[in-house]
This record gives sequence, structure tokens and C-alpha cells, in this order.
Amino acid sequence: MQALEALESNVRSYSRSFPAIFSRARGSIMLTEAGRKVIDFLSGAGTLNYGHNNHQIKAAITEYLASDAVVHGLDMATPAKLEFMQTFSSVILRERNLQYRFQFTGPTGANSIEAALKLSRKVTKRQNIISFTQGYHGMSLGAIAVSGNRFYRTATGVSLSGATFMPYDGYLGPSVDTADYLRKVLMDESSGVDCPAAILVETVQGEGGINVASKEWLQSVQALAKKVGALFIVDDIQMGCGRTGDFFSFEFASLSPDIVVLSKSLSGYGLPLSMLLIREGLDAWRPGEHTGTFRGNNLALVSATAAINLYWRCLTFSQGVQRMGELMRRRLEAIASEHGNGFAVRGRGMALGFDCQMAEIAEITTRKAFEKGLIVERCGPLDQVVKFFPALTIDLETLNQGLEIFEESLAETLKQTRSQ
Amino acid sequence: MQALEALESNVRSYSRSFPAIFSRARGSIMLTEAGRKVIDFLSGAGTLNYGHNNHQIKAAITEYLASDAVVHGLDMATPAKLEFMQTFSSVILRERNLQYRFQFTGPTGANSIEAALKLSRKVTKRQNIISFTQGYHGMSLGAIAVSGNRFYRTATGVSLSGATFMPYDGYLGPSVDTADYLRKVLMDESSGVDCPAAILVETVQGEGGINVASKEWLQSVQALAKKVGALFIVDDIQMGCGRTGDFFSFEFASLSPDIVVLSKSLSGYGLPLSMLLIREGLDAWRPGEHTGTFRGNNLALVSATAAINLYWRCLTFSQGVQRMGELMRRRLEAIASEHGNGFAVRGRGMALGFDCQMAEIAEITTRKAFEKGLIVERCGPLDQVVKFFPALTIDLETLNQGLEIFEESLAETLKQTRSQ
Amino acid sequence: MQALEALESNVRSYSRSFPAIFSRARGSIMLTEAGRKVIDFLSGAGTLNYGHNNHQIKAAITEYLASDAVVHGLDMATPAKLEFMQTFSSVILRERNLQYRFQFTGPTGANSIEAALKLSRKVTKRQNIISFTQGYHGMSLGAIAVSGNRFYRTATGVSLSGATFMPYDGYLGPSVDTADYLRKVLMDESSGVDCPAAILVETVQGEGGINVASKEWLQSVQALAKKVGALFIVDDIQMGCGRTGDFFSFEFASLSPDIVVLSKSLSGYGLPLSMLLIREGLDAWRPGEHTGTFRGNNLALVSATAAINLYWRCLTFSQGVQRMGELMRRRLEAIASEHGNGFAVRGRGMALGFDCQMAEIAEITTRKAFEKGLIVERCGPLDQVVKFFPALTIDLETLNQGLEIFEESLAETLKQTRSQ
Amino acid sequence: MQALEALESNVRSYSRSFPAIFSRARGSIMLTEAGRKVIDFLSGAGTLNYGHNNHQIKAAITEYLASDAVVHGLDMATPAKLEFMQTFSSVILRERNLQYRFQFTGPTGANSIEAALKLSRKVTKRQNIISFTQGYHGMSLGAIAVSGNRFYRTATGVSLSGATFMPYDGYLGPSVDTADYLRKVLMDESSGVDCPAAILVETVQGEGGINVASKEWLQSVQALAKKVGALFIVDDIQMGCGRTGDFFSFEFASLSPDIVVLSKSLSGYGLPLSMLLIREGLDAWRPGEHTGTFRGNNLALVSATAAINLYWRCLTFSQGVQRMGELMRRRLEAIASEHGNGFAVRGRGMALGFDCQMAEIAEITTRKAFEKGLIVERCGPLDQVVKFFPALTIDLETLNQGLEIFEESLAETLKQTRSQ
Repeated sequence: MQALEALESNVRSYSRSFPAIFSRARGSIMLTEAGRKVIDFLSGAGTLNYGHNNHQIKAAITEYLASDAVVHGLDMATPAKLEFMQTFSSVILRERNLQYRFQFTGPTGANSIEAALKLSRKVTKRQNIISFTQGYHGMSLGAIAVSGNRFYRTATGVSLSGATFMPYDGYLGPSVDTADYLRKVLMDESSGVDCPAAILVETVQGEGGINVASKEWLQSVQALAKKVGALFIVDDIQMGCGRTGDFFSFEFASLSPDIVVLSKSLSGYGLPLSMLLIREGLDAWRPGEHTGTFRGNNLALVSATAAINLYWRCLTFSQGVQRMGELMRRRLEAIASEHGNGFAVRGRGMALGFDCQMAEIAEITTRKAFEKGLIVERCGPLDQVVKFFPALTIDLETLNQGLEIFEESLAETLKQTRSQ
Repeated sequence: MQALEALESNVRSYSRSFPAIFSRARGSIMLTEAGRKVIDFLSGAGTLNYGHNNHQIKAAITEYLASDAVVHGLDMATPAKLEFMQTFSSVILRERNLQYRFQFTGPTGANSIEAALKLSRKVTKRQNIISFTQGYHGMSLGAIAVSGNRFYRTATGVSLSGATFMPYDGYLGPSVDTADYLRKVLMDESSGVDCPAAILVETVQGEGGINVASKEWLQSVQALAKKVGALFIVDDIQMGCGRTGDFFSFEFASLSPDIVVLSKSLSGYGLPLSMLLIREGLDAWRPGEHTGTFRGNNLALVSATAAINLYWRCLTFSQGVQRMGELMRRRLEAIASEHGNGFAVRGRGMALGFDCQMAEIAEITTRKAFEKGLIVERCGPLDQVVKFFPALTIDLETLNQGLEIFEESLAETLKQTRSQ
Repeated sequence: MQALEALESNVRSYSRSFPAIFSRARGSIMLTEAGRKVIDFLSGAGTLNYGHNNHQIKAAITEYLASDAVVHGLDMATPAKLEFMQTFSSVILRERNLQYRFQFTGPTGANSIEAALKLSRKVTKRQNIISFTQGYHGMSLGAIAVSGNRFYRTATGVSLSGATFMPYDGYLGPSVDTADYLRKVLMDESSGVDCPAAILVETVQGEGGINVASKEWLQSVQALAKKVGALFIVDDIQMGCGRTGDFFSFEFASLSPDIVVLSKSLSGYGLPLSMLLIREGLDAWRPGEHTGTFRGNNLALVSATAAINLYWRCLTFSQGVQRMGELMRRRLEAIASEHGNGFAVRGRGMALGFDCQMAEIAEITTRKAFEKGLIVERCGPLDQVVKFFPALTIDLETLNQGLEIFEESLAETLKQTRSQ
Repeated sequence: MQALEALESNVRSYSRSFPAIFSRARGSIMLTEAGRKVIDFLSGAGTLNYGHNNHQIKAAITEYLASDAVVHGLDMATPAKLEFMQTFSSVILRERNLQYRFQFTGPTGANSIEAALKLSRKVTKRQNIISFTQGYHGMSLGAIAVSGNRFYRTATGVSLSGATFMPYDGYLGPSVDTADYLRKVLMDESSGVDCPAAILVETVQGEGGINVASKEWLQSVQALAKKVGALFIVDDIQMGCGRTGDFFSFEFASLSPDIVVLSKSLSGYGLPLSMLLIREGLDAWRPGEHTGTFRGNNLALVSATAAINLYWRCLTFSQGVQRMGELMRRRLEAIASEHGNGFAVRGRGMALGFDCQMAEIAEITTRKAFEKGLIVERCGPLDQVVKFFPALTIDLETLNQGLEIFEESLAETLKQTRSQ
């Protein structure tokens, strides 16, 4: 660890929260160099929905590598890309009555967000993007400008422009419908809010603290976007690919976004991949207007195809996620109500947050949990929310073990902080 | 191909220039689905310096995958990352008397550029970046703002700020030292050019048309950066990793940049990877100020380590690149002088450009070349320069075959355009 | 009129609303070239609080001109400037327990707003300005960026940045305290609203439609500014100088702004003049950091001194304004309630608005009023509010005549529009 | 003076350079309260081309005031405005074969610059403005963004965007034609310089140090603007109204700008006034898109008309300015060559600069000059240039007295600094 600290920039973060060298991983278990087994409830911040080193997916990429098929070819046509698009279209889109064109950007979510904003501005000839309080969309300049976090915004060293932040669903308490406020400023010719190129929304805000938007609110926002001539973009980077139960996180609200942004678990194996789904009539790109060296990472397309074939050809997997999510939620709610303290559980599917109200409690609890063998992250504006993101493929026994560790860690933390 | 066109966004580009489905690849040869063999002088725009599917590197990643070592772990510590940093430090840095800290950003060059600009602004508390005419640094908003290309700039749909473009070496003809002009505007309190956070330079501009900066000019610019308190950043994304002969493209001028940006061929196998090298005292990041889901792609770190071990432990490889670069240059210069026409050859090492002066000639020539079995790209403000980027590991026979195809294609093109 | 139209730019506006050539004016009466007398309820958009060509003030400037005292001297010291500052300090500030430094900027309100924003950003080293929906602060780029009107914002042809618009008092209906919302986004580290350099507020929004902020709301906003380390700026360009009854419009709420911006009626005679009042400890300017050719227009300083001496040495004038304001309000409320229609009267002192709800009604009414001999303007996001801004020195008879014309014009308009 | 210092903001500047209270002024003489007579070679930074309190002009405004004609009426039609436009059109424009529409903006030059940039961006739908090193155009945010001075730029506290600074004529020495460089970056699709909405130029840079553009350079720049579809704007705020000999400073080069900006001496009496002259086909404003409380200051329009009638109906005045300018230049050149030191004289007409090379010499010299009875200012990036701006109406005796004081002051300064 000291060797690593001497070489790697101060910017490193997870190696501080989870100070160990991780040598092997499989499913929901990671193994440290020292031989300790740790349960993973972080899942690469939502990148490992199918677990670490999923062997069925691994078989596909190992075979691909062995065959000397094209690994890197910029955005040249390959059978791997074609097969991915065809599989995704028939298994995911057609089943849901959706029709989109595929754009493979650089292999990170931020890059897709940048492309989505560009396309929106290009199509509408407007510049403003409506984004929401506590939203998070990435680290590059265009993506940070639409992200709420001051810590990240300040780090850019420049004044960020081109975005207007509106209160997310519930931000002003249960009695204020923030979609009404959004409608008011967009219709008011003197509100100071310029006509938007797009409204960009997460259906559940992950980094923001597992804030959940209601079906009605999301529908209002989508309708409003149409009304004012703005594109409606769902950032499904973290909440897509089954995390909330359905493949897309917006299916429960029957939305049909103009653009959907996917990344993280898309490749199914933790390999970098990202893409936009673009409604047919909006694909206004000229050839090469948005490029990138690693767009359409072929190896990741192969694993992505495998993942779709394995988990999304029937409803079993999706139903399992919903069932397991319910289990988790009940267990966490029981813990919350046992302690009182204003503790609250939020989320959908297997994207759950346990709001400790105070950053200190969340911090000590997750530290203790790691010592006891559980990797679990914090989120929210103050890092006061413990974020439960187990692999969707986790077995019940491991899931329960993890929740037990959390329960014990929280209890110890409360005992300790109260006695201070 | 039609199936692909129906599904993929209009934005696709290389699948238009090279209209075929590429199924397999090895070294400098790509194979189409139809069974045609094509010589690759594009090398993934500089990503495949060690050729396609290099089997010695493949062995390393196949073994890694088989062992269930950690493939995705955000920026947690892994033996793969530690080994990469130690190998790079001892084999590359120590040998060159350089000392840097490693920052692994999201796995694209643009993401590293964004991080480099952020860090410069953070350290200096200034906002302006000095960038150069015809420079290219990436597609995300921060990176495009420092890139010269209007086609890309316009596509953002916003007004780009925070950069001042200065004439690159030679831009105002041989009689004007553009470093002098840069010095003048930076020292003049009324020049309108705000004090810079950084000066960002490519030693050879790839996209810009294979424009080569001289040793003296680069040294002047580096000295000037120091004088005005700006960071000196070399973007070695395309020209690093041996492309110009040395590992870093700036070794010939004995520069010691404050930040070096690497990507493309860094992973050695076409897998997405990017990093910053940061001079020790400038590593002012707070933990987590620049993050990203796919930073430190472990599989790519494994292939990167393998590539360094294979090619950079002794001087043979580097010397071979320089020798082969000389051969190419002489052959291309002979072709240029044979035809006259103002044709010119530029570049360093195995990064060479053949300036056709007119876009049309370059366009027809490369189209014909592809028909004859050679993939070769165009660059420059008008796409008037043919860009020769063979794998550094290419054998002489294949290299000569490729050059022959180019020579024939050019001759036919000239005959055809003259007869019009 | 045709001669004028042929020569002056299309941008001209009031010469369209009030199509006549005005040759003479005195008090509240303007005289057209054709000899028609018109009552003026516009008062130069709040510039002529003491009426047209006020003879007592005129005496002072005529004498000044006759004496060859300095008319233009950039910001050199003159007896006229010194006397103005001393008079203003003793008569206006000391009486109200206020202490400020004077900054004379270029002679327009916009210029003072620009200076106030600069100073706030300089003092706090932050860039964001909190501004409010439907606020208006001027036409230069810095001033428009904090103004809500899309018509003006779009005319700049650039993307405006550096401001965040928050809902003004009452904007979200009576049940939502918008100061609470402001507090929430400023305290939330992930709201997307960057820490502000200043909060800029009008106590009554003139252009915005005569929207009135309550005492409590203003006090909350001032307290919040202090809490988050932002400057609290009152734009009293239109509502200051007695328009709402007191000299400053914020006296009723016992505010003590960090910066007060004055212009319009400050000179008392319609001569261009503007200034900032700066709280002592915040006068962080370096000499010459904000300059301007016409700052401290001496002739206007002379008339400004005369106006203060004439009207503000005792309470009579202020009390008269409040009394007359009450009369106007009662009359307008009677008209409103007579017609129903959702008509509403808003305002403070002699700054009153009659909200016709529909632009068409306001437009026809004011057109008819001009035909009948009354100049009265419209405001609000849709120009749906008739704005009553008579001179504060108007006599009761003329005031009643004007109101009568309005009443008749409205009645005719309603009859006409209903019969359509 | 102490009373003034206690009340006025630190930002005050000329009252520091010329520490006296100025009570009276006439022609080229100012009188301090203490009774000292001082010769004025500053002329309100070019605002008093016809001298202080010119009695013939004064007669016109005194009469206007006496008649109760409209002093303030926003932009309503008045006989004063109509007469001004007709007089200016027939006496100034028609004689020079020019045809323009008049736009009266807020009464400062900065406000007109803001309007000119807006109109350019509106007409071209582009955002970038080409501006020049050491140019100066005003203090509001839009105007500073196109001004070169870092002291002013930094004071804004924001990052200024929307402008590209190009080297002014002569900036890179006599051997480089900077218009060629401008052409190159505008025609180069990868230069990083976005297509401009306008090219904004001063024919002689006043604040920048009395830098003079040649006829050929100005013609090239105008031709280039036309070629790339950008508006060509001459900022004649300081150099217009006869300062360089002709009424417009660009007459010597036979330019026909798309927009001309005038202010400063336009009113002829030091009263605030500014306007744009807009080429007919470019008057694309919608009514009211650029407004302002004090636009078309009627009192200033009256004095402006008087000034035109007095001085510009025949050639005598213009010829006198050119003759007197020649005298001044010869005298200053003699002084320069006597001392050597690299001293240089620059300028056109009666806008002359004496470049002392070192700020210290210029500073001490002008301080001494004030002690001896001469007001003369400094300019240039280091304030190293003494700026000679006597009234155009100055008599030869006073002019010579002033030059004599300068000569003595300089000689003393040199003696003193050498002996250190």
C-alpha cells in the first residue's frame, strides 16, 4: 500500500475508503492480497450489476480474444458491433416498443453526456440545459456544468455556464410540486431562465443521495420538455441495466425519452463502454461531428451482447431483482425504524439508500463495515446516505450476510457516538 | 453493412472511409468479412503502435482474465495497478531522469486533458489556457475549447471560452519566430491575453496535419511557461509511446513538462487507458476531486505493463523505429519530388505526413489506396495531408507494400485529375 | 415624424408608443408641437420624480452654467461634487443612520450595476450573482446577465452567465416562502447553485410588473446574504429618490444594504447621473479600477444637490408622496373591483401597477389614454400591467384628471373587446 | 481635498493625478479654488475638443433650458433630436458621401460599444469579436471583454469571453504585416479562432499608447471583414469629432465602416452623449431591443448641433487642426531627438503621444508639469507615453506655453533620474 501511495496522485479515493490491495474477485466477493474475503455492496458504483468476473460473460470475451477478432478499430464496422446492435434492438428495444439509433461515444458515461448535450444544442439551436439539484452526470467540463456538486464544480477552476438547476422531485418538501415551478419559469418570458435545449434527468439520483422521482413528476417533466421544444434526456448510466428492476429505470413511468444515456453495467464485465440511444428523427449528426479513439470498444461490445443474452431474454432476472430489492428494503426499513433517529430508506429495485441524516454516523458505520468484511459506499450532499448496490446476481445468503454486517456496524456506531 | 447503417447514428465516420466489415486482425493486417486482406497504416489513429492483437501482449491479458483477478474496481488498489506504476517508473521514467506521480483518469485522452486543465487552473488560480493553431486535444467541452478545429467547435453549440490560440511553430512562415510573439503578448499588460494557467502543446500536431515543432521553439515555449508562472503540458496522446522514435515525443528536445498526458497506445492492445504524469510538487489534488468509473482499467494496465516489458527495456525497439521512419521518409520524399506539385513530407519517427496541398488529391488517393488494400487516413485543416501511421512493429515487406500502394494510388489520382 | 423615422434606427420605442413630437414640458404636463397638452404618468420611467423642468432646480443649473464652473472634468475634484456629497451625507444618510462612500460611475444605472457586480466579485472572489425572476437591471452585458427578460437577453446574441435566478417574493404563490428555497439551495452543497458574490434585489420590481417584496422576505434575504458571505445589493435606480414614499425604497424594512445603486431621479432634472453607495469596509477598489468619461457629471450633481435641498430637508414631501400614493391606490382599486376580471392593483407609494391580466387590454387602454391626453406605460412579462408613475410633485387636480382618463380608456377598451 | 477623500471611493483617479479642486474653466484654462491657472492638455480625455465651457455652444443650451423645451423624454421624438439628426446628416454625412441611421444609446461610449456588438452578433448569428492588442473600448462587461488592459479585465472578477485579440498594426515590428496574420487565422478552418461577428478597430489607439494604424492596414482589415462576412466597426469615441484633423478619424483611409461609434466630444460641451451610426441595411433591431433611460440626452443634442454648426460647415476648422497638429509634432520631435533615449513621437492630427519608454520618466514629468501649470495625461500599457490632447480650439500662445512646460519638466526629470 505504501508503494502505491508514493506513486499515485493524491486524487485517489476508493483506495482510501477501502485500504487494501484487492487481488481477486468473483460474483459478490472480493479477495484481498492478505487473503481476506469481503462482500461487495458497491459493485463498481453500479458497473458490476452481473457481479465480478461473471464466468459466462468471461467465456465470450476469452473466445473473442483467442480468435484475433478486431479489438480496436476506432468506429470501423465489425461483426461484434453489428451483433450487439441487433441483439440490443430485438431483445431490449423491440420488446419495449422503443426505437432508437445507436451512437457509440468514448467509453465513459461523461462522454455520452457530452454528446447528448451537444446534439440537443445542435438540434434546438439553444444553449441552456435544465438540470436538477443534486444531480450528477460526470467529470468533463460539459458534464460537470450540469452536475450539482460544489466540490466537483469548484475543482474545475472556471465558472460553469449553460445550465439552470431546478429543484428535483421532493426538493421543496411534499407540498410543493417542483414540476409546476419548472413549468412556471419556462413559460414566463421574464424568469431569467433561457429556453432550454434539453431537460436532463435521472429517475433516481445515485450520487445525490438515492433521491427517487415519482412517476407523475417524471411524466410532467417529459410533457413539459415536449411543450417547450426541448429534448428530454434520461441519464440511465447508473440506474439503467436492471438496477431498479427493469432494464431501463424509466419503464415504470412509461416514458419515451428523446435520448437515453447508458454506460457502467452496459458492458456487463466492467469493461469501458458507453452509448446514446437517439430517437430516429433527432439523429442530426454530421459524419464525424463527435468522435473518440475508444468509441465502440469491441471487447466490451462482446461482453455486453453476452450479458443481454444471459439475463434479458426472459422476465425471470428482472423479477428476481424486484423481489430481492423488496427483501433488502424491508430489512433496511426494519433497521431504520428500530433506531428512529430520522433514519430513512429510499430507492427503487436494488438501488437503495439508508439516510443516516448525519455524515458522521454514515462514515463510521461504513468504516466499521469494511473492517467486518463489507464494502459499502456513501452518497448524498453530505455523504450522509449509505448506498446499497449489491450485484443483481447476488445470492440470498451473501446478501443477508452483508446486511447483517451493516446492521451490526450501525448499532456499534450509534452506541459509540451516543456515549461520547 | 446496410444493417449497420440502419442502426448506427449518422455520426459514424471510419465505417464510411473504409466501407467494409472487419472481422479479424493481426499485426499490420486486417481481414474483411469478405476475406480481403488490408494493410493498416492508420493503427487506430495511433492506438496500435504494437500492431493488432499482439500475441505476446494477449498472453498477459488472457492469463489475467483466467485468474479472476480484479477487472473493475474503480480506483481501488490492485496488484495490476501497482505493478504497472512500478514498471513504468523504473523502465521509462528513471531511465530518462524523470520523476512523476501517476493519475489514472477516465480511460480516454480527452478525460486526461480535462484533468490536466483542471489541475493547472487549480494550482495557478488562473483560467486561461494557451493553446496552438491547428492543435487537437479531444471531444469533451473542456478539451474542444483548446482544440482549433471549427467543425468540432461549432458542433458543441456553445461559445467556447477559457483558451487563447497562438500560432504554432512555423505558422507565420519561416521568418517569424512565433514563440517571440507569444512572449510579447504574455509580457504585455494590454495585449488582451489573460495570464495563463498553462501552455498546452503537441510536439508534432497529428490531426492538425503532421506539423512539427522544432527543438528550439519547444524549449522557448517551456521556458516562457516557467517565466510567467504557467504549467507546461505536453499532450503526448498520439505522439507518445514510441511513435516519434523515443518513448516520449519530447525527449529529443530535453523537455521536462509539468504534466504529460498519455493514452492511445499506452495500453498496448487497443484497450481504453489514459493517465497524467504530474510533477511531484504540482499534485495539488484533494482526494476524489477528479473521479471516473473506468479510471485505471485493470485489464489495460496489464497489457500496458506487458508492452513496456516487451519493447522498452532496451534501445533496440526505439532504434528500429527511427531507422524505419527514415526509410519511410526517404521513400515518401522521393515520391513527392517526383511529382513536384508542392507536395511535401513532414514528421518525425514513424509519424509522417504527405501534404498533397489539395484536399481532392488526398481524398481520391486514399480512396483508391483502400481499394488496392491499404488503410491510410487524412488529416490537416482541409484533410489535404495523407497520414502515415503504420504499426511500429511492422515488417519491412509489408511497409514497402503499403508505400507502393500509396505511390500507385497517387500516380493514378494525378493522371485522373489532370485529365479532367 | 416621418423625417425622424427615416433617420433614427428601428430600435426606437417610446416614439412609437407616444407618436408625437414633444416640444415643451413643465411639471406633469408635456406639450406637443401641434399644441396638444398631455399629462405625464410615465415621468421618464421614474427619472422625473420632481416633474419636468422643475424651475427651482433649473435656477441652480442655469447659474452654474453662467459662472463657467467646471462642467466636464472626468473625476477631478470640483466644489459641485464636494457639495453634493456633503449635502447627501448630512441630509439623506446621517438622518437615516446610514454611512456610505460615494462612487460616481458612468451616468447610467447600468453602469452602476456593472460596478456593483464587479466590486462584489472582487471582494468575495466568487462569480455567481443571485438575481430574481422578473428582475431588471440594465442593458450592458453584465447588467442583462442579471435581468430576467428573454427579449433583452436574446438580443445580446451570446449566452449569458454568472447569474442564478431565484423566485422573487410571491412568485410561487402565497403558500411558498421563496426565501426558504433560496436558503435551501445556498446551504445545499449539491444544489448546483454556486456560492454567490452578491444577492441583488429590487424592493419593488418596476419593469417586472410592479411586484412588491414584503418586509419579512427582504429581511430574510438580507440575513441570508450575510450568512453565506455574499454582498447584499439594493437596486434603487427606479424605486429610490422618493418613489415609494421614503428616499430609499428599503427604509420601510429597515435594511442596511452593503451597496445601494441610484440613478434616474437622482439628478432631479433628467440629467444623466448614477452612483453607488458602498459600505465603508467594502470599498476595496484600487484607484482607477472602474472609470468612465462622464462619471460625476457636474451639471447633474448641481441639480441633484438642489433637489435634495428642496425636497428632503424635512418630512413634508415624503408624507405628501405617501398620502397621494394612498389616494391613487384607492382610486385604482375601486376601478379594479368595479370591473372584476381578475384586475389587481400592486405597488408602494407612488409606484403603482394595475394588472390587466391580458396584454391586449393593457395595450388598447394605454393607446386610448394617449389619444385622450395621458402618457402611461406598460410593464410586466407580457406588458399586461399599466404602470402609474406620476411626478411626486403632481397636483391633485392633474392626478385626478389622469386617473379619470385611465378609467374611461379602460372602460371603453373592455366594452370594445367584449363586443368582439 | 480631505473632505472629498473621506467621502469618495478609493476608485477615484484623476483627483489623485491632479490634486486640486477645480472651480472654473474656460477654453484651455482651468482655475483651481486656490486661484491657480492651469493649461489643460487632457481635455476630458478627448471630450472637450472645443474647449471648456465654449460660450457659443453655451448660448444654445442656456436658451434651450430657458424655453422649457423637453430635457428628458426617454427616446420620445423632440425637435432637438430631429434637428441634430438633420444637421449631422447634411453637414457631416452628406459631405462625405456617407449614409447612416442614428441610434442613440445610453450616453456613454461603452453603452454604444455594447449596442454595436449586440447588433453585430444579431446580424451575423456569430459570437466572436476580433479586437486588437492594446485596444480600449469601455468599462461595462461587454466592452471590457474587447479591451486589452489586464488591470481592467482582472477587476471584473470573471472570465471574459467572446473576443479574440489580434496584433494591431505594427505590433510585431515593421517587417510583419499583422493584417496577413489576421487573414490567415480567419481563413484557416483549424486556427481555433471562431468566425467573427465583427472586427472592432480604433484608427489610433488612445489608451493603448497613441498607436497609429496605417491607411493600408486599415483598408486590408476592412476588406477582410467584408470577405469573411463580419461587420467592420470603427470605435471613433476618442479619435472622432476632429481630433485627428478630419471629423471622422477614418476619412484619411477612405473607409466606410458598417458601424461607427461616437461619444466624448460629440456633445461639444462635455455633456454625456453617445450614438451609433449604422449602415442602412444592417439596422436589424426590433423596436426596443436596446434601450436606456438617458438615451438621446436632449440638452446634449442641442449642444452637439451647435458644435457642428460652429465648426464643421466649412474646412477652416479642420485645416487649422491639421496645421496645429503639425506644429505640435515638430516641437515634440525636436524635444525627442534632443534627448535621444529612444524617445518617440506618434499620432495623427492633434492626438499625439510622446513615448518616454520608461514609466518612471513619464510619471515624474507629468507630475512636475502639473506643478508648473500643465495638465497632461499618460497612456500606454505601462503608462510610459505622455498624451497630448489640447482642445482643438486652443490658441497658439497657450499651446506653446504648454509645450514649454512639458519640455522643462522632461529636462528636469531626466537630470534628476540620471543623477540617481
